[in-house]
Amino acid sequence: MISADIKRLITRQATPYNAEPPAPELTSQWLTPTRSLYVRSHGKIPRIDEKSFRLNISGLVERPVTFSLPELQERFPATSTLATMVCAGNRRNEFALGGRKAPGVPWDVGAIGTCDWQGVSLAQVLKHCGVQAGTKHIWFEGLDAVEGHGDPFPFGASIPLEKAMQEQPGEETLLAWGMNGDPLLPEHGFPLRNVVPGYIGARSVKWLAKIVVSDKPSPNFFVQDVYKVVYDDKPESTANATPIMEFILNSAITEIRRFDNNLRIRGFALAQGSLGNAIERVEISTDRGKNWLPARIITAPGKNTWSLWSATIPAEGVKTVTVRAFDRAGNSQPESQKFNIKGYQLNSWHTLPVAGAGQGA
Amino acid sequence: MISADIKRLITRQATPYNAEPPAPELTSQWLTPTRSLYVRSHGKIPRIDEKSFRLNISGLVERPVTFSLPELQERFPATSTLATMVCAGNRRNEFALGGRKAPGVPWDVGAIGTCDWQGVSLAQVLKHCGVQAGTKHIWFEGLDAVEGHGDPFPFGASIPLEKAMQEQPGEETLLAWGMNGDPLLPEHGFPLRNVVPGYIGARSVKWLAKIVVSDKPSPNFFVQDVYKVVYDDKPESTANATPIMEFILNSAITEIRRFDNNLRIRGFALAQGSLGNAIERVEISTDRGKNWLPARIITAPGKNTWSLWSATIPAEGVKTVTVRAFDRAGNSQPESQKFNIKGYQLNSWHTLPVAGAGQGA
Repeated sequence: MISADIKRLITRQATPYNAEPPAPELTSQWLTPTRSLYVRSHGKIPRIDEKSFRLNISGLVERPVTFSLPELQERFPATSTLATMVCAGNRRNEFALGGRKAPGVPWDVGAIGTCDWQGVSLAQVLKHCGVQAGTKHIWFEGLDAVEGHGDPFPFGASIPLEKAMQEQPGEETLLAWGMNGDPLLPEHGFPLRNVVPGYIGARSVKWLAKIVVSDKPSPNFFVQDVYKVVYDDKPESTANATPIMEFILNSAITEIRRFDNNLRIRGFALAQGSLGNAIERVEISTDRGKNWLPARIITAPGKNTWSLWSATIPAEGVKTVTVRAFDRAGNSQPESQKFNIKGYQLNSWHTLPVAGAGQGA
Repeated sequence: MISADIKRLITRQATPYNAEPPAPELTSQWLTPTRSLYVRSHGKIPRIDEKSFRLNISGLVERPVTFSLPELQERFPATSTLATMVCAGNRRNEFALGGRKAPGVPWDVGAIGTCDWQGVSLAQVLKHCGVQAGTKHIWFEGLDAVEGHGDPFPFGASIPLEKAMQEQPGEETLLAWGMNGDPLLPEHGFPLRNVVPGYIGARSVKWLAKIVVSDKPSPNFFVQDVYKVVYDDKPESTANATPIMEFILNSAITEIRRFDNNLRIRGFALAQGSLGNAIERVEISTDRGKNWLPARIITAPGKNTWSLWSATIPAEGVKTVTVRAFDRAGNSQPESQKFNIKGYQLNSWHTLPVAGAGQGA
């Protein structure tokens, strides 16, 4: 059963439920309304009784603890973080344009959104538990049950300790119960999830019930086998690949509208999720990359949050529009990109045809 | 008739309708949900038929124009701006603590909020109309009817041309039809209002129907007589005072909660609305300003948007908590402040008693 407001999304996969908003809806405002945020699930969406819910923290800690939600809310000061959430598979369906379809949820450009998350600081919770020497990774585990790979098991993730201990505004990982000022919807992890600014969505675990402090990355299937960039299906290639952590520099066109003799073009750009990074500039091309024009960045840059941009150009003769972005860390998007068999981190220039331009226009 | 969601607010004045959220609700998230934004009106809230609505632009322009809402949306590219809206009279009721009550809406700390506004760039609209040489001010006029000062007349404002022509993200004035991704509510100016980042709320006119390009400031009563800082009621004092434009550096405590033997303190801080300014630091005191401790700024700084902060301190013996903020432009809040007869721009240190601390604690 999907929440009423969420049903408006475009379903990309019915079971498990995966859905994204229509692209123009994505960038009609800077902050993504809850009804417009993509839903990524790996199993059935669990319905959890808040009263019986517990978060357990164990592993290399001085004091293992179990918190009910009110206990967590009482014990630590509430905080609020703006962060872009993006699936590592966003834009996956474009791999098919290169002649090879990637398996997995066939995302268009909409598996991304920017929300205001409410919760407590993971770093402060970990300090409370007393992280032991030798700790290198923090594991997260949900209350969902993923099927199709043997016995059902929960989705899981882990992040390096160094990231988990960040406390700067905009860089801090949250244990979050709220989204845009409301409790989380079931589709977004009610009653609790973690939110890791700057990291791919898969590192933010919904229906979060277990945190393990460890000297190793999580052994969870989704860390060890799934969210990795690999170029062949040899088991050792996957075993040797590093799990994806930071999201990649990206940009996409969400809307091309004709007005009088002009085209109005809108979209988003997201800097690589590195500490202190931000979008530097966005450019568009109408000749598939021979010449570039600056787009207008219409929102002030933030940490680990997208920038919206727009451009207005004469429509005459324009059959396609291409976008590319640059970030302050010196990254730029490639013209094209080698196929990876799981279809992750597609960030080559994004090109859309202009509707009605016609073959001979 | 007040919209259902808005009725939750605390009414500060029934006619005209003025209301603010409970203070803790204000800072439970960075972006203010529409249901939690204060409502400031000077007359009855008009209900406007979107179909017959027109925006007229006249005065010192090459091309006077009249736009329906769809025409405005078609003609100019849509944009989105995060901006804090704050009433110049916010915290007015604190003047009474100094022994002298200021007339006007008795605001506590809640006549402030930060929203994501959707609309078009005023600068681009003005360029389209062709601003003539000699222009110095842009006037705005609403469709409300303010009573009690002779014949009913619309609320109005004006801003300097230089401000109106700003086009940088976060500094740009919008003609806005949307708020947090939804159409404006009637209480917030449906179908159109302007939003001036960095300026007091009174310069952002709701139910906006008329823009006049001029060599003079607007003659509207609310520009010439009302939103000014004056220290006596002589007509020449008011006539000689400059209308308030930028909002002032400010901070306030929104919540003090006891937990175990600690106090959890939360609040907001807002830098003066100067170009490129932002909050630099926030400090709290438990001895009314003899000693200060740094508060933790929990949200990344933005342009013309507030910062949220929090602090946790031992509760023992603490009877009051005081906050003060500093901004990058070098402003700091004063310990105390001279009374001004209209009760504007109160920004002295904000002190709250700790509930249950008792006289002898």
